[in-house]
Formats: sequence, C-alpha cells, structure tokens
Amino acid sequence: MASGDRFGRSTIVEVARAAGVSRQTVSNAVSKPDRLRPETLRRVLAEVDRLKYRPSSAAQKLRHQRAGAVGIELDAVRDTPSDVAHPFLVALALAGLQHGYHLVPFASRDTFPMLSSYQEMVRRQLVDAFVLSDTHRHDPRPGWLTAAGVPFASYGRVYDDPTTTLWADVDGAAGVAMAVEHLHARGYAKVAFLGWPKGSAVGDDRRLGWERATDVATGPARGPSATSYQDLPQVIATAASLLDLLQPGDAVACASDVLALGLHHAAVARGWRPGRDLGITGFDGSASARLYGITTLVQPLDDIAELLLALVGRQMAGLTPPTQGSLLSPTLSIGPSTTIHQEGSP
Amino acid sequence: MASGDRFGRSTIVEVARAAGVSRQTVSNAVSKPDRLRPETLRRVLAEVDRLKYRPSSAAQKLRHQRAGAVGIELDAVRDTPSDVAHPFLVALALAGLQHGYHLVPFASRDTFPMLSSYQEMVRRQLVDAFVLSDTHRHDPRPGWLTAAGVPFASYGRVYDDPTTTLWADVDGAAGVAMAVEHLHARGYAKVAFLGWPKGSAVGDDRRLGWERATDVATGPARGPSATSYQDLPQVIATAASLLDLLQPGDAVACASDVLALGLHHAAVARGWRPGRDLGITGFDGSASARLYGITTLVQPLDDIAELLLALVGRQMAGLTPPTQGSLLSPTLSIGPSTTIHQEGSP
Repeated sequence: MASGDRFGRSTIVEVARAAGVSRQTVSNAVSKPDRLRPETLRRVLAEVDRLKYRPSSAAQKLRHQRAGAVGIELDAVRDTPSDVAHPFLVALALAGLQHGYHLVPFASRDTFPMLSSYQEMVRRQLVDAFVLSDTHRHDPRPGWLTAAGVPFASYGRVYDDPTTTLWADVDGAAGVAMAVEHLHARGYAKVAFLGWPKGSAVGDDRRLGWERATDVATGPARGPSATSYQDLPQVIATAASLLDLLQPGDAVACASDVLALGLHHAAVARGWRPGRDLGITGFDGSASARLYGITTLVQPLDDIAELLLALVGRQMAGLTPPTQGSLLSPTLSIGPSTTIHQEGSP
Repeated sequence: MASGDRFGRSTIVEVARAAGVSRQTVSNAVSKPDRLRPETLRRVLAEVDRLKYRPSSAAQKLRHQRAGAVGIELDAVRDTPSDVAHPFLVALALAGLQHGYHLVPFASRDTFPMLSSYQEMVRRQLVDAFVLSDTHRHDPRPGWLTAAGVPFASYGRVYDDPTTTLWADVDGAAGVAMAVEHLHARGYAKVAFLGWPKGSAVGDDRRLGWERATDVATGPARGPSATSYQDLPQVIATAASLLDLLQPGDAVACASDVLALGLHHAAVARGWRPGRDLGITGFDGSASARLYGITTLVQPLDDIAELLLALVGRQMAGLTPPTQGSLLSPTLSIGPSTTIHQEGSP
C-alpha cells in the first residue's frame, strides 16, 4: 500500500516507481501528454488513477496562472436562448482543450447594468479573459474591458469601435447572397426576404446579402420583403401576409431559422408544400431547421471558437492585436425546403 | 495617485483609505458582500473598480481551495442537444452565484470511453466536484466518482445503485399522470401515449404515469400507444400511424416535446387542428413547445440546480449524504394544444 501524502494521496515518486518511469515522465503524462509515447502514457495514467495521484496545487497554480479561465456569459434573461448559444459553448469547450483554456460560464438575471456580472467575475479573479457573444450597437462591454485591461475576444463584430480587431464573426451578407443564388439556381422565380425590423446590426447585415444578390441583371427577380421579431406567432402572421404577395414557384430567403420555421408553418397552413411550391432558406444551422428539412446557412462555430481563443492567447502573451477582425463565410446546408422538383411532382 | 502593487494595481489599504472603511470591510465587500449595508457595499465596490484593486491570489486561493469549481459535461456528440441542456446550465450558473461555486463545462468528441474527460478534469485539478446529467442505466460515472472520492451530484437518478442518494430528478410518472388528468378534465375522450422505445429509464418512468392515470375507473379511457426515437421524420411517421387509430376528440400524451412536435406536425398534415380536434401534451418545457403552443410539463430546473449544489456543498463539508434523493414534480404549462373548445368552434 502506498503511504501517500497527508491527504492519503500518492506522491509523484510512488507513481514513478509503480509505472517504472522517471518523475519527469509522470509530470509530463499529466501536463504534456503529447510528449509521451501512447503505451507509456497509458501505463503512467493507469498508475496515476490507481494510486489517486494529484499533482501539487502549487505546481498546477504556476502553470495555470495567466492562461486558464475564460469567462462566457450565458443569457439568463431571454426565455429562448439563441439557436447557436449551446453549440457555440460546445465549440468553445472543445477549442479550449487545444489551447489549454477552460471555460467559466456565468449568468445574471439582471438586465441592467449588464456590466456588473463581468465586473464581479474580474473582482473574484475567476477568469483571466472573456469571450463576448451577442455583440450589438451601443454594447458597453468591449469599451469597459479595454479600459480595465482585461483580455477579450468577441463572437460578433465590435460595432461601436471599427478600430477594434479582437473579433470573429459570420459573414451574414455573403451567406444570404449564397442562399439567394442557390434559390435562383434551383429554378424559383422571385426571391422575397423575411427579416428582422431594421436597426439590428446582424439583421441589417443579412438583409444586405439579399439586396445585393437580387440586384444583378442575371440574378433572380427581387420579391417583396417583410419583417418580424423572433416570436413564432408574430412570424407566422407576418409570413402569411408575405405569402399573399407571392405565387407558387417563388421563394423567400429568411434572416434566421426561426423566421424560416414560421414561414414553413404559414406555407403548410395554406397548403403550399415547402420546396415544391415555395423555396425557403433559413440562417444559423439550428437543430430546428434540420428537424424541418429547411435549407440553412451553418455558422462555422468550430473555426470561430478557435480564432477567438487564439485572440485571447495573443493578448495573454502580450502580442499586438491582428490588423483586422475575421469574417467567416457560413456554409449552405441544403434540405427539402429548396427542392422544387420533388418525387411525384409533374 | 495610488502607488499600487508590482502589477500597477492598488492594495487593500489604498481602497480602505479611499472608501473610508476598514481593511476587513473591503475584504468582506469582495468575498462576503451580504455582510455589508448596501450603501457601504456600493461605495467600497466603486473604489475597488476605480483603483483596479484585485484581492491577492493567495488569499483567493485559500478561500476557493475546496469550494470552487464544479465540472459539467456538455454533450458534444449528439447533433441536437437536449431541450433542457442549455436552460439547465443557466440554472446551475445562477444557483452557483448563491453557493459560491463557478461552473467549468467540458466536452469531448469521444463517445468511448466516456470517463476519460472526467479523469482529465480531475487530473488537471480544474474542478472540485461534478454535476452529472443524462444519467442512465449502466452509467459508469457515479461508481467511478465514488471510488475516486470525487464529490458529485446527479441530475437524474443513479439507476444502478439505489443506495446512492446524491441526486435530484424530475418525477416523470407524476408529470405525465398530471397531463393525462388535464386532458381528461378538458373533455378529450381516449388518451393515447407516444413514447420512446422501452428500455430507457427516463422513458419508462414517463410511460408509467400514462399507464397509472388511465387505469382508474373514473379516469379517461386508455388509447393505443406507439414509440419512436427523438428523430422528427421518424416521429411524424409514427404519429401518423397512431392517428389512424384515433378519432377527432381524442388526445395523446407524449413523453417529450420533440414527440409532441412531431405529432403536432402529423395532425396538421391531415387537417386536424391541435387542441380542437386532438389534445396534445409534451414534456420538458422546451422553447419549441412554447413556440408551437403545446401544453408541456416544465422541469423545475432552478430547484434542481439548487438541490444539486447543496448536495455538492454537503460533501465538501464532509457531511453525510441525505437519506434519499429528491424527486421533484414538474409543473403543467397549458397552451392551445389542449384547448378543445376554441373560438369559432361550434
């Protein structure tokens, strides 16, 4: 029986002896496993587990001192989290494994002031940096974090300060333009647009893609447009009015999957089959869009997470920020909602 | 200008002087804010922010040594996260604020062995305890954590070891029975059941509620039952076959909101109006159910999160576990899908 430390746990010497390796090898197995051959790693970790060895806190602390915890706010206020909130968290956690960061999510039921929970996390030293999401115009967070000297990276452009390059974002305009081109290539006549009320930075960006892609001589004719907030009953009502202006064979590019879902609903309610009678595209690559077979633009969440943690690491290491933010193109995931010639159609 | 420490930050003495309070009061403002009067707290925290004071790591470390980080696994394998995964995380983060815990989510793309990411978190000393979710039969995690002496609390019963009381769970049987009674009271004739294939612990528990509530002399007649996995096209096909066995005026209690959503879809497709022609209840209180107006059983996530962190705290403090796990009743959220007499109906 190993004698162990004062907590009854084993020491590094005991693990090294049991595994027949040096102390340095045990240390590497725990902190730099890629330096060991797989069979050695397996043998050492088996002894680490069997002997309940834990590296000393002091050593761990040193290692994690300035490169460890990344805070990420969870939205506790909105009833319905965004379609990408959870997948983004998973992407960040997975990217964190590569970068040696771990996430510390936090939430607050306060809607105002929105900075207080960030201040609290800094004060309690629970995080070394933040990843922001859901950035918008008049967002106080980037300015405050910059002034406080706290490293951060933003999923979403920093709209109020074009000189800030600490962000990665999906290219909404390019994405919707891609969707419009796809609808045109599939043979739909007019392409309408269902978006959010003007004034939201993300929504305006996505609308721009529709305006651009329907403003070309060789592209599809531009249909009417309508706007609704992300509330399904309202979306369905708005979509029904929009459908009154369209004919079977037309299509609608939507600024989000929730809008596309409501349109899908309104189309089915009047007996129009999505795809055959009406082309529908969404945006976000949500589980709901996949469930309903809606063609959607999938956000490159793994790449975005990777870029954001690299931005955090750059600041931790005292390097200068990059010369520009990263705008990534989404990818089109094609479903039955944009298949005009279906089995059994004439 | 405050002189600050070697990082250019202020010391506790400078903050105390600026705020006109004792050093102990500054310390309390940061670590035990509820001990201060609100106006004192506000004044001290204003100076803490202005002077960029950070409590020393050593003091922080001592305070957080055995009561800090709670690991929670994010499901990175399944394409569609469960409807409650994100809301549960938010509930845990909010409850953590009260208990002085912070969350450390982690994820792995490996499906096997599922323990390795837990072992990794323990080895790197990133967490002091775990909250488990998605427990199931033959789940290796509770046994391994117990053997390793790592505190944990489980959202979901520990099925393989009835002596383990370190869990809180929603009472699925009571919930579905409540839904059946509601459907009966609303005037639906037969109550059918749409569930998951037998063998899943959670699914079997929910089915039991339907069996019990339709097995009473004064209750509704028991309709047929059908099963499907959580895959919408499959659910819609299964639901369509189930509807062949029913008549307008009947109802279906579903084991989940995804099942209810598929049934809703199948009903609309044959021209049956949800609510008026067919009663539908779901389970989980998901955003989708709310979007589609489906009556559903809302899981008491705040209470469950609170209980789980209390269980973790109890183990941290070396107290004995409670004598039994906590089974909490869900609450019924009523939507149009169980409103049989609607505006405009005869």
